Amino acid sequence: MSRLQETIDNVRPLDSEAMQQAAERQDQLTKPPGSLGVLEELSIRLAGIQGRPLPAISRKVIIVMAADHGVVSEGISAFPQEVTPQMVANFAAGGAGINVLSRHSGAEVRVVDMGVATPVDIPGVIDRKVRPGTANMVNGPAMSRDEAVACIEAGIEVAEAEIEAGADLLGTGEMGIGNTTPSSAILTVFSGADIAQATGRGTGIDTGGLHLKREVIRRAIERNQPDSGDAIDVLAKVGGLEIGGLAGVILGAAANRVPVVIDGFISSAAALVAARLCPAARDYMIASHVSVEPGHKLLLEELGLKPMLFMDMRLGEGTGAALASGLVEASARVLSEMATFADAGVSEKDEKQMDSATE
Amino acid sequence: MSRLQETIDNVRPLDSEAMQQAAERQDQLTKPPGSLGVLEELSIRLAGIQGRPLPAISRKVIIVMAADHGVVSEGISAFPQEVTPQMVANFAAGGAGINVLSRHSGAEVRVVDMGVATPVDIPGVIDRKVRPGTANMVNGPAMSRDEAVACIEAGIEVAEAEIEAGADLLGTGEMGIGNTTPSSAILTVFSGADIAQATGRGTGIDTGGLHLKREVIRRAIERNQPDSGDAIDVLAKVGGLEIGGLAGVILGAAANRVPVVIDGFISSAAALVAARLCPAARDYMIASHVSVEPGHKLLLEELGLKPMLFMDMRLGEGTGAALASGLVEASARVLSEMATFADAGVSEKDEKQMDSATE
Repeated sequence: MSRLQETIDNVRPLDSEAMQQAAERQDQLTKPPGSLGVLEELSIRLAGIQGRPLPAISRKVIIVMAADHGVVSEGISAFPQEVTPQMVANFAAGGAGINVLSRHSGAEVRVVDMGVATPVDIPGVIDRKVRPGTANMVNGPAMSRDEAVACIEAGIEVAEAEIEAGADLLGTGEMGIGNTTPSSAILTVFSGADIAQATGRGTGIDTGGLHLKREVIRRAIERNQPDSGDAIDVLAKVGGLEIGGLAGVILGAAANRVPVVIDGFISSAAALVAARLCPAARDYMIASHVSVEPGHKLLLEELGLKPMLFMDMRLGEGTGAALASGLVEASARVLSEMATFADAGVSEKDEKQMDSATE
Repeated sequence: MSRLQETIDNVRPLDSEAMQQAAERQDQLTKPPGSLGVLEELSIRLAGIQGRPLPAISRKVIIVMAADHGVVSEGISAFPQEVTPQMVANFAAGGAGINVLSRHSGAEVRVVDMGVATPVDIPGVIDRKVRPGTANMVNGPAMSRDEAVACIEAGIEVAEAEIEAGADLLGTGEMGIGNTTPSSAILTVFSGADIAQATGRGTGIDTGGLHLKREVIRRAIERNQPDSGDAIDVLAKVGGLEIGGLAGVILGAAANRVPVVIDGFISSAAALVAARLCPAARDYMIASHVSVEPGHKLLLEELGLKPMLFMDMRLGEGTGAALASGLVEASARVLSEMATFADAGVSEKDEKQMDSATE
């Protein structure tokens, strides 16, 4: 059996008994029931993921995957392709947005070369290059079916190595000039959304560039005819190497009962690939923020995930995941560290004023 | 001149030169311009608040003010009044939600008795009791005009003591059984909003309780006829002691060029009192989250503030402010710690693909 199939088979439902115990404890903590909202829901989900009533997060790792995209030759990005390896070097040196926000949140950063077009020889960058950039999807598939599977399996292995080394929360991040274009294509194919609604300005193209980008996506889909019922086919034909890698990271996390925080638009496209390969993996995904990129909201709806941060961000790299990873950790701390009504000698709700369940 | 008037007079506009320098630096950092959204805006505002191009946050303090409300005798809360001092004890012991989330965010918690109905003799709780709970506003003013001013001035003094001790970010929090009722009344009077829209379930009353609460607010406003053009009059007639105290904390922060993170519904009612007393203070306010309490959105609109966190929280205590204080700190770190394009040797945007300013 393939590594990919084995991983998918290992993704199991959440532990409902642990969730029940966590939910009961939440209702004994010194606050009106439900008043911490998403923090309560997250803590209960973490209990189900980790399979214990008092979950904890002790080591957070943001995995940033980089790759290039042949479709940039169509002129769909505001930045030149050389920026991909330059930013990989910036990640390795600690100077990028993701480095600052991960330091702030107490998370580590791993940088993975999934397919940068030029050689990357930077200490600390994990080399999982499947090929040096995708082909231009306007002229044919971005990559072969075997390469698509290889990306996902590389992502699974990267995730499992981090989990073996002690990571108990993963976050996704990416860098790849041009990568909002395949992400919009993936969203369009899987959801049937209108290309115009699924496509935005990425790093900042002008209106002419936006029209061109939409036309490029239309042509790529028309040329390749990806099968929306076959996620590997979609990834191969209109995807990206880092997108496949991140789909693997997400599956690897889910198979090992580790929560994975999804960053922005490109990470969510990877999450949708993962969810189509393995619907049960969705329970392990935690949405971080909603991006300015208009398709992100559609992707999150497609995934059934609710973002926590509304900060008009559109940088990617895992920056939203890094910020949200702290919120996830906080949710576990609330469940473990808050006093109960009994501990603190605090009176509970008046019975005559209990919540009406009928409204 | 009164302490209050002196404080209002000391609130000055933001430093536009520092903001300009911060904005220029943001555009040199290794990311598409504007791509960190609210984090960029916040860092620029912090520069204007602190009056320096590279702002920093080093000591965060959440000020939790507690008081009781005579209007609880109308039966408008799901919890009994004895919970106010019980929760003050819980804050002092470190077992409440605000304690956990402040520890998580690296913030300190100060607890202030502004007017708990029963004697509070707990080490570590700052005694600024103006009176033991307000009067029932259905029968007359909640407090006298002098008491309203005394609350605000106490808040100013509490804020200034923290700032003198080194705090460079304050957050607001509160505890007071029944205090969504005066908050809804304040919102209604200042904004002209419909009482039904401004009033929610607080800690969890049922539908009958909600109808009663709206009727109580209507009667209190009719009985007292607060003058919406006179913020002290509104606070005295339909406000609360902790609400006045927090309005003072906000004014004290603004007068000392310290950012203040506003928590949820009750804190935002206090912020609206502060903004009506001193419109320039709004530039120093940072919204944290949007609460489940329906009037909170209206209050934030009235204040012109945009929340960052959408987490369905409604606990108060400063819990949203504690979480958001970390985001504010992160914004300053981005501005100071990220590499510039020149530092990192990263190429800038293609000129032919620059953002169109006309769309």
